[in-house]
Amino acid sequence: MSSTVQSFRVKKLLSLKRVAIITKLDDERSDKHAARVSQWLKQRNISSDLNHIEAGQDMIIVLGGDGTLLHIAEKAARYAIPVLGINLGNLGFLTELREDETFAALQKILNTSVTIENRLMLKCSLLSQGNRSSSRYALNDIVISKHVLDRILHLSTRIDEEYITTYKADGLIFSSPTGSTAYNLSAGGPLVYPGLATITVTPICPFMLSSRPILLPADRQIVTRFDSDNYTEHGQVIIDGQALWEMKDGDELEIVTATHGLQLVVSSARDYFTILRNKLHWGVSAPKQ
Amino acid sequence: MSSTVQSFRVKKLLSLKRVAIITKLDDERSDKHAARVSQWLKQRNISSDLNHIEAGQDMIIVLGGDGTLLHIAEKAARYAIPVLGINLGNLGFLTELREDETFAALQKILNTSVTIENRLMLKCSLLSQGNRSSSRYALNDIVISKHVLDRILHLSTRIDEEYITTYKADGLIFSSPTGSTAYNLSAGGPLVYPGLATITVTPICPFMLSSRPILLPADRQIVTRFDSDNYTEHGQVIIDGQALWEMKDGDELEIVTATHGLQLVVSSARDYFTILRNKLHWGVSAPKQ
Amino acid sequence: MSSTVQSFRVKKLLSLKRVAIITKLDDERSDKHAARVSQWLKQRNISSDLNHIEAGQDMIIVLGGDGTLLHIAEKAARYAIPVLGINLGNLGFLTELREDETFAALQKILNTSVTIENRLMLKCSLLSQGNRSSSRYALNDIVISKHVLDRILHLSTRIDEEYITTYKADGLIFSSPTGSTAYNLSAGGPLVYPGLATITVTPICPFMLSSRPILLPADRQIVTRFDSDNYTEHGQVIIDGQALWEMKDGDELEIVTATHGLQLVVSSARDYFTILRNKLHWGVSAPKQ
Amino acid sequence: MSSTVQSFRVKKLLSLKRVAIITKLDDERSDKHAARVSQWLKQRNISSDLNHIEAGQDMIIVLGGDGTLLHIAEKAARYAIPVLGINLGNLGFLTELREDETFAALQKILNTSVTIENRLMLKCSLLSQGNRSSSRYALNDIVISKHVLDRILHLSTRIDEEYITTYKADGLIFSSPTGSTAYNLSAGGPLVYPGLATITVTPICPFMLSSRPILLPADRQIVTRFDSDNYTEHGQVIIDGQALWEMKDGDELEIVTATHGLQLVVSSARDYFTILRNKLHWGVSAPKQ
Repeated sequence: MSSTVQSFRVKKLLSLKRVAIITKLDDERSDKHAARVSQWLKQRNISSDLNHIEAGQDMIIVLGGDGTLLHIAEKAARYAIPVLGINLGNLGFLTELREDETFAALQKILNTSVTIENRLMLKCSLLSQGNRSSSRYALNDIVISKHVLDRILHLSTRIDEEYITTYKADGLIFSSPTGSTAYNLSAGGPLVYPGLATITVTPICPFMLSSRPILLPADRQIVTRFDSDNYTEHGQVIIDGQALWEMKDGDELEIVTATHGLQLVVSSARDYFTILRNKLHWGVSAPKQ
Repeated sequence: MSSTVQSFRVKKLLSLKRVAIITKLDDERSDKHAARVSQWLKQRNISSDLNHIEAGQDMIIVLGGDGTLLHIAEKAARYAIPVLGINLGNLGFLTELREDETFAALQKILNTSVTIENRLMLKCSLLSQGNRSSSRYALNDIVISKHVLDRILHLSTRIDEEYITTYKADGLIFSSPTGSTAYNLSAGGPLVYPGLATITVTPICPFMLSSRPILLPADRQIVTRFDSDNYTEHGQVIIDGQALWEMKDGDELEIVTATHGLQLVVSSARDYFTILRNKLHWGVSAPKQ
Repeated sequence: MSSTVQSFRVKKLLSLKRVAIITKLDDERSDKHAARVSQWLKQRNISSDLNHIEAGQDMIIVLGGDGTLLHIAEKAARYAIPVLGINLGNLGFLTELREDETFAALQKILNTSVTIENRLMLKCSLLSQGNRSSSRYALNDIVISKHVLDRILHLSTRIDEEYITTYKADGLIFSSPTGSTAYNLSAGGPLVYPGLATITVTPICPFMLSSRPILLPADRQIVTRFDSDNYTEHGQVIIDGQALWEMKDGDELEIVTATHGLQLVVSSARDYFTILRNKLHWGVSAPKQ
Repeated sequence: MSSTVQSFRVKKLLSLKRVAIITKLDDERSDKHAARVSQWLKQRNISSDLNHIEAGQDMIIVLGGDGTLLHIAEKAARYAIPVLGINLGNLGFLTELREDETFAALQKILNTSVTIENRLMLKCSLLSQGNRSSSRYALNDIVISKHVLDRILHLSTRIDEEYITTYKADGLIFSSPTGSTAYNLSAGGPLVYPGLATITVTPICPFMLSSRPILLPADRQIVTRFDSDNYTEHGQVIIDGQALWEMKDGDELEIVTATHGLQLVVSSARDYFTILRNKLHWGVSAPKQ
């Protein structure tokens, strides 16, 4: 067993010449703030691309909620561009800066080195009747879910070639540490520190009461086969909240850790546990030491 | 993030010249089997020490249940002696060979290389009024528990210097992956694959419904301070089921991963998930592929 | 507070002149057993109707699983005809006699008085844009569930005119005591003794960790309104596993206890807790007293 | 099944001539407020007894938290004296009036009829070696708990003469509907509407994952026997948070509903669900209708 978090957090000075600004879809407040941010950057000789990501950009600024950030996570990870999240509504787990903190945060990034967390991403593909789909990426989770009118799913699951079990459940959630606070938590799964190299498998409404969430190593392959005696039943594969594939009898979903994680710029204002205490209403302030 | 399991499992040829045989306390069946095992080894020019562990032994054979193995885990880890568990009652998570499989298993160990798993152990010490206790080791878990007549405990917890939260609960379980199937599971915690470098913190009957189990990296230090307005209340520290220290107001329990883990000889008969399916009544057989 | 179970269980001598035999759909074994049962009854001057229920029948014999019994529960309750369940597969919660116990059980019913349990049923109707649907009945549960591609539902719930809360969840389960061992249990709800006059409301994968199952009195009306800002989202109402209505923004689902419960003939072979211990793998035998 | 809540809530005009005022132990704020309340009552020709309850009093005013009210619940129920709870700290489930609402609430009680809820209480006694203890009463819960150094308890439980199961757990909670929001909730049990005639049995950290909370009818007797092979282990019986009896091998705890419940004066300011939403942080305000 070797250290899991040594390269999780690095200090880095970002030299900003060109950034992408990503706005929330159809959101006027986001558009207006994007204009202000673009203007602010321009005055400092930093160019900006609106809602367009490509190799060579030095940072991506997301103006929206966690959902907006999830949408661009795959591209950001592919080009290894660090992402700064600014939340225009309620603070999120990933977009943890408030609108009014934008320019102070940007100024700080220009002045000094910032902390960047490497958030593990999951990669999956579907094997169906001998054909393999293209790969897709998730920052939070990959979910296999039953359709509302279908019966319970049978999901035979193994890690590398070791058979785990056949889950009988409404669905199955494969979550990264980052996604542990999302759907996984609603379904009864544990919190997972973001630096850990783990994949959490959590059944949704399992038929057997002893079917419990399990933490698996992120450096192995997890394969789930859709078993159905009834060819009319399909499973739906959902990636970071977006529907993707249907699974039919015999189809297999393969999940591994992506080669590149998301580079998340973290503010010095709020650490992971401060965000957690806020979002889970644990009470915010640390006790007097 | 680096690989967490690369050195978890190794293949090794054990050259047996001298072994320790550990029996269950006051258990006639265990004693009788020990005599047979000792005799069998002697016929093969392997000496054996009964209920005595010291440096230089090549393997420890435990004849009993998981509890018997837990008792000798610290010594086995300290001297880096591999441990083979043979269960004389119901199969355990750690002692997963049946009595009637003993000699076939031993013969196999003499003939070929065997798989040895490095099971992470936890190490803790207590800081009380400026004094630090000696270090103690756990293979399964370290628990802080309230006394039956005391009120809920306040356990302020941090990792390195990051404050996590102040648990208000009947107690707090710090479990290794190996211990995830023990008390942690009863208290609502997740299963954790034994190769992971994680410590799971699970509150017992937490006052707040949003106090959930959390997985933390094993290469950092977790410190829990006992906060009490009422000096009559104490917390009990329990290590692998054995009571150890009382905690008073202001005392701090420090937990890190031990330098050496337990070297567990695993049989080829049953892998981790087979044991899990058996013990949790998930249904045992793998589906037809 | 008055007694909740005084009329739950009655001893009654059933005078059988005419019974209904209900078979499982497309199930040869069920059909064959139906023929044998019909023949056996005929020899004792008892006529039988195959897969047809109407007023005037003295008993309904279900040959199938719990699902087959759920299908005819509404009609059985409406005509107040007692139901005997014989399970041709694995024993169910409601069909708890084995095929080979059929004739001994029938002979016993002819000879002596039997125990009949009055199992509470739920009744619901949908209010949509000023129109009220016809009433539908459930023996196990009424579920509002999201479609697989929709986001979390907002379900504003009240009892009579008291506002309870607005559940944010994948769905909401309203279960009778009989249904407590069905979907409710998978979603984290409690077991409920079948004689209790309660409705259990259990959220499915709730967004807030403090959203917990709640037991409500069965003699009041529960109303859940579907709140959606997004008119494209629908909720699906599912009654005893059968899809029924779509819910749109502003629609209200009204749930009350049905006037008549299901009259379930219970065998002397297995009491409620024996079935529970069997089905939940608690271990079957009572301890020596 | 008959109505469970018909007599749960009654409207009543309390004619106050003499009341008891109960203060929190060693609490100056409580003492001072008691003096003010006593004075206010005196001016209206109502006499008051400080920290003394006896038959003939027309109401008991509790100035403290839920714990203070629990202490006097048995006496209040025995003499059928209604109880008004005023909370001097954080609002409780039972003491749901703020200090500054005291005199408005009292004036209202003098002027008009108030709502009084009949909160079911539990009654228990211990059978040990042929001897039966005196009866004790609980408003929230009766708990059997292991001592911190003891192993898991074996608690063989039946209702009337029907065997339920043998719980293997750290303990067992028997809670009234009122107590459902107390220890029961921390241990994973459901919320129970206060008008229901039920007893909830919730295992604490059960060994088997399928050991789930169960709701039982309040008009039957629940008996739990302490089974121990090891005579050194004892169970502790705790009533509304107060330690009472030790249980030894073979001892039986009998639990029934008390003949008289607690008469709780409820304010019109906050209904049950408003308190629930506040205490569980569900969000307080009802949605716009």
